[in-house]
Amino acid sequence: MKALEEKIRKDGRILEGNVLKVDSFLNHQIDVPFMDKVGEELYRLFGDCGITKIVTIEVSGIGVACLAARYFNVPVVYAKKSRSANLSKDAYSVKVQSFTHGGEFFDVMVAKEYLSAEDTVLIIDDFLANGNALIGLKELVEQSGATVAGAGIVIEKAYQEGGDRVRATGMRVESLARIRSMDSVNGVQFCEE
Amino acid sequence: MKALEEKIRKDGRILEGNVLKVDSFLNHQIDVPFMDKVGEELYRLFGDCGITKIVTIEVSGIGVACLAARYFNVPVVYAKKSRSANLSKDAYSVKVQSFTHGGEFFDVMVAKEYLSAEDTVLIIDDFLANGNALIGLKELVEQSGATVAGAGIVIEKAYQEGGDRVRATGMRVESLARIRSMDSVNGVQFCEE
Repeated sequence: MKALEEKIRKDGRILEGNVLKVDSFLNHQIDVPFMDKVGEELYRLFGDCGITKIVTIEVSGIGVACLAARYFNVPVVYAKKSRSANLSKDAYSVKVQSFTHGGEFFDVMVAKEYLSAEDTVLIIDDFLANGNALIGLKELVEQSGATVAGAGIVIEKAYQEGGDRVRATGMRVESLARIRSMDSVNGVQFCEE
Repeated sequence: MKALEEKIRKDGRILEGNVLKVDSFLNHQIDVPFMDKVGEELYRLFGDCGITKIVTIEVSGIGVACLAARYFNVPVVYAKKSRSANLSKDAYSVKVQSFTHGGEFFDVMVAKEYLSAEDTVLIIDDFLANGNALIGLKELVEQSGATVAGAGIVIEKAYQEGGDRVRATGMRVESLARIRSMDSVNGVQFCEE
């Protein structure tokens, strides 16, 4: 999505340790008029897949998931994260290892009543890097018997292994911007440029 | 908002300890087609106030804030919560006491770059109960010099003191459903019925 690549070039900042900061439009301030177009693009890609529910994970996936869900005319279910084992017989849950938080494990859960075998799910998230969160969400949805139609990702760090790992599971993954490399000298390079 | 009152009666559940569970449409699953109408109603109420930014607090305010922001055509800034004192000279912050989490204090912060004296802010949140979060958000926004035009609340527990406390500060508060009382025998009663 060309407009998204331009937005990342213009508003993103590369911090020490090759962290891409997109706080100004994606995950602290949300540029809603712009992210609404991102949601519309996800609908263009997945609109013919019979989606009945969009699943995302708190916190930073919620905004874009809701804006996309308007186009699909379906509910959003956001999986909850918990550091404490808060397992319940009424919830589907998986353990996910966070690489951004020092390798810590956390539990990700969704109440059973909000996913069922009748659902066809689109997973939406803001970032795809090592793939742990996305693979966890896929497993979580599959516990319910629902079909995962694919994943719509705003920004993929294509120089990390997550995209390959997730696609190797057979899941369709559409990333609207795929970063091939980035550093503070040369800025951000996208794939297929 | 009549449709919201009906939705709460139909889909809300009253749990032990007089907790109103609206997980099915507001804060775990988000009924986006319905919440979009809630956003539109907030625009009907505040659309003539020159709003430049919507401020909410993670997690459960983000969905409705984004859906409302589409009508206002403005960005959302979501304040972040932190249990550890994570104060930065680059952020506005306040301490808020949580009554739902055993009286624990947490820090609420917004990066300074996303609020300024030129902004006119609408605060949006899902619940108003004791008023601590809303008063904290108001103070946070005012640190930036921005004008607070008011607060749009989805559900106010009018039998708690928060609404009175917040309105006593002079802030305009519009709650789309105001619960006068509730219990598992009689269900939910709304104000002005």
